[in-house]
Formats: sequence, structure tokens, C-alpha cells
Amino acid sequence: MNFCSHCGSARLIRQVPYGDNLPRLVCEDCRTIHYQNPKIVTGCLPVWENQVLLCKRAIEPRYGLWTLPAGFMENHETLEQAAVRETWEEAKATLGQLSLYTVLSLPHISQVYMMFRAQLRDLSFAPGTESLEVQLFSQDEIPWDDLAFPVIHRTLTHYFQDRSAGDFPVHVGDLI
Amino acid sequence: MNFCSHCGSARLIRQVPYGDNLPRLVCEDCRTIHYQNPKIVTGCLPVWENQVLLCKRAIEPRYGLWTLPAGFMENHETLEQAAVRETWEEAKATLGQLSLYTVLSLPHISQVYMMFRAQLRDLSFAPGTESLEVQLFSQDEIPWDDLAFPVIHRTLTHYFQDRSAGDFPVHVGDLI
Repeated sequence: MNFCSHCGSARLIRQVPYGDNLPRLVCEDCRTIHYQNPKIVTGCLPVWENQVLLCKRAIEPRYGLWTLPAGFMENHETLEQAAVRETWEEAKATLGQLSLYTVLSLPHISQVYMMFRAQLRDLSFAPGTESLEVQLFSQDEIPWDDLAFPVIHRTLTHYFQDRSAGDFPVHVGDLI
Repeated sequence: MNFCSHCGSARLIRQVPYGDNLPRLVCEDCRTIHYQNPKIVTGCLPVWENQVLLCKRAIEPRYGLWTLPAGFMENHETLEQAAVRETWEEAKATLGQLSLYTVLSLPHISQVYMMFRAQLRDLSFAPGTESLEVQLFSQDEIPWDDLAFPVIHRTLTHYFQDRSAGDFPVHVGDLI
């Protein structure tokens, strides 16, 4: 941020506003306080029988590596709507029985990942514009060394452990 | 947003960027795309024996009405850190045994509320600058008609129902 988005001034300073306790970017001309907050990334772990659906990324970062369908939640949608939309955009797959599964804070990049377990409705899926391939994997086929992000590794690890135990609690944690 | 925060231009237009599917505010001069995303509000339902801790708001909106301690998550913190911080700021209370409890999407205002159940460590609490009073309430003392927000009503309703049943699952839902 180089200019105030309210008045266009370049006189932005970092200061703790009155009554606040953290430094914010404040416009010295119009006094607008520019807050910045974490973003929600949401998506699904789509399941078909004993397999899960992964997407090979067609975009940076992590081009060519495997991920679960997920992306930034948009204004004016619900978490579940966002998770379903991302799965449709990246894997052209439709889902039922969504259940919140992992809630992982990534404070170094100010993101919170919220992934849902979900059942694929059928075997109709295909790469969206952000995917090179979309494929079902059983546990022993998961490309563990070619996963795009630690948060995907963590979510899949929880899933296969919980599947063995027959219980799927919501996992809340941090990835630092 | 009246001016591009990157280059200061007033030539902002709403258009669907190439490869995207939603209209965004785009700068016609420097081509920066200005994304806007939902915000996370997080906080706690602090419990002491058979009572819960509520705060009477000293700020608008809903000045003078009762709420659970909660507020906007900040960059570079985890969800739990944010919930603990908000409870300290608004109620000067310290907590243990946090457990994620409600995850409620409010799409009309692009917020996701994430509230934790938590145990008060002791009876030391007091109003922070955003509270007029802080007080423990048993179930039959809850000021249901003077709660600040529907999301607080929903969270407390779940809590007392679940307490009767002896089980506290994570509740995921929407408030439209």
C-alpha cells in the first residue's frame, strides 16, 4: 500500500491509532485507518470409496505438484459454498455430505485453512483451468513427496489416521 | 476504495480479470487487482462452573448490550491466540482448555465467526476499554433479550443444549 485508497494521499504512516494497541497504516490527510486481516482458504478432501481426489497444480506457486481443491473464500458466500465452488473450479467435481475437518492457522502468511471432508457424488471430474490433472488416489498411491503445501500433507495425514480409527474429529492447529 | 492503493490512480473500474470469474476492482493505470475477502471474528465462551462470562458493550454497534468477548483476528496470529487476546482485551480474563465450538458464516456482512469454548482460569476479570461490565451468568440469568448479535444468541443456545446432552460437537452453520 503506497497510497490511501480513500483520498489518494501518499502520506501514509504506521502508527497505533487512539484506543488501539497495534500499529496500522493511517492516512495523515483523511485519517482513514487501513486494517489488514488474515484470509480464509477453504476447500475439500473429496472421497470416493477408499480413494481421495487430488489436483495437480497448473499455476504457481507449486506448479506441477499435487493438492486438494482449495482457494480464497470470497465475500458474500458461506464457508461451505466456497469449499464447493473451489472444488468445482479446480476439479469439476460435485460433492455431498460436507463436514468441517481441519482448521489450520498459518500465521507467517496470515491465512487460516479450513478443509471439509466430502463425498464425491459420482466419478465425473476433470481438470479446471488451475489444474493439469485430477486423479483419485488410494492411501498407498498418495504422492507424499510431491504435495504442494504442508497444510495438504497435514490434512491427508489426519485423514488416513482417522480412517483407521473410524472417527473424524475436527482438527484445530497451527502450521508455523 | 476511491483510489488505487498501489499507484494512487483514481481510474478504478470493476471488471472480471482474465482467468477469473468474479468482478474485481482493477486499476486501469497499473492493472493492480484489488481483491476483497471475508474477515474472521474470533473469541471465547468463557466458562466457570455452571456460569458463562458475558461483556456489556461500551462501543457501537450495540452499545449497552451483552456479548461474548470476540473481535477481528489480526495478521500474524493463530486463531487461538486471537481468541485469547480478545478475551483479555474485553474481559481481562485468562483462559485454558480452548476448544473450537462454533463456526458461523455471515455472508451478508462477509464475516466468519469462530468461537471457542474455554475454561476461566480464576475469578479475576474486569471490563476492558470496550466493555462497560463483565459478569458471570448461569443459564436462567442470561439476558436473552439484550444480547448484542444473533451469532451470540446462537452460540449460547448451542452451549446450553449441548451441556444438557453432555457432548460439545463443533457446530458449523450460516446466519443469513
